Amino acid sequence: MSVSDQALQKLQQILLDMPPVKAMAIVIDRFTEDGHLRLSAPLQANVNDKHNAFGGSLTSLMTLACWSWFTLKLEAEGHAADVYVADSQVRYLAPVYEDLVANAGPELRDDWPGVLAFYRRRGKARMQMSASVVLADGTVAATFTGRFVAMAKDR
Amino acid sequence: MSVSDQALQKLQQILLDMPPVKAMAIVIDRFTEDGHLRLSAPLQANVNDKHNAFGGSLTSLMTLACWSWFTLKLEAEGHAADVYVADSQVRYLAPVYEDLVANAGPELRDDWPGVLAFYRRRGKARMQMSASVVLADGTVAATFTGRFVAMAKDR
Repeated sequence: MSVSDQALQKLQQILLDMPPVKAMAIVIDRFTEDGHLRLSAPLQANVNDKHNAFGGSLTSLMTLACWSWFTLKLEAEGHAADVYVADSQVRYLAPVYEDLVANAGPELRDDWPGVLAFYRRRGKARMQMSASVVLADGTVAATFTGRFVAMAKDR
Repeated sequence: MSVSDQALQKLQQILLDMPPVKAMAIVIDRFTEDGHLRLSAPLQANVNDKHNAFGGSLTSLMTLACWSWFTLKLEAEGHAADVYVADSQVRYLAPVYEDLVANAGPELRDDWPGVLAFYRRRGKARMQMSASVVLADGTVAATFTGRFVAMAKDR
């Protein structure tokens, strides 16, 4: 099932209702053709003392991109789930002097059908996900991997 | 050398000048008796859709606690350094329904004299650091390890 524009807008509102996310001005952009979810945020709201992007903002953006991917894909299959981040590993590779853009998806694209089938049987599932922040010139500025857990809201 | 209250206040102002950190209302509290640096932030400014602390805020707080520890300890020895986070590993263990408190220091306390000696010779050094968010009842809610790099500002 594909994710509707309405579902993206609904999740955007949920993000805006979180004070730290609103302050970072994080925007859910769209699903890319290769199935990643793209989020962005303006540099100005996320700048550090060195005039580049604050590490906590880069990590927040990548974490939320994965979290949103998992939430939206379950919802598109009719499942209302609470999704949590369980752990994460981040590498900061280059400073970001431009607006922040993150792309996220399952670490292995083939994982999703198995995760979905597991969730349908058990009402919960975990998934290894990955995200990255890539600059306009193609430089990978930060990478993220992490495990996320989804649990049915009515359990 | 110990870190002065004046140095804490100066760094607090640097944090407040970073828009995402100001939005999270992060406060540098004090060095604890065992040599950790304690930072805190109100839950209200850092809450997620589930009414507990946003994971990105927990990670930002722990990252900044380590970053501040390294910056302040170098400064107390007369070294003005730019400190960067290079990588991090975070585990989210329990939801946080109260104000956020993080404590940070070198991963191994014995590391600091060696790191300082290296920095004095080379004008740069890296250090493995750790931090955690502990609840009022003693529950460890999140753990952080990460590598930080310091470089002399006048290099």
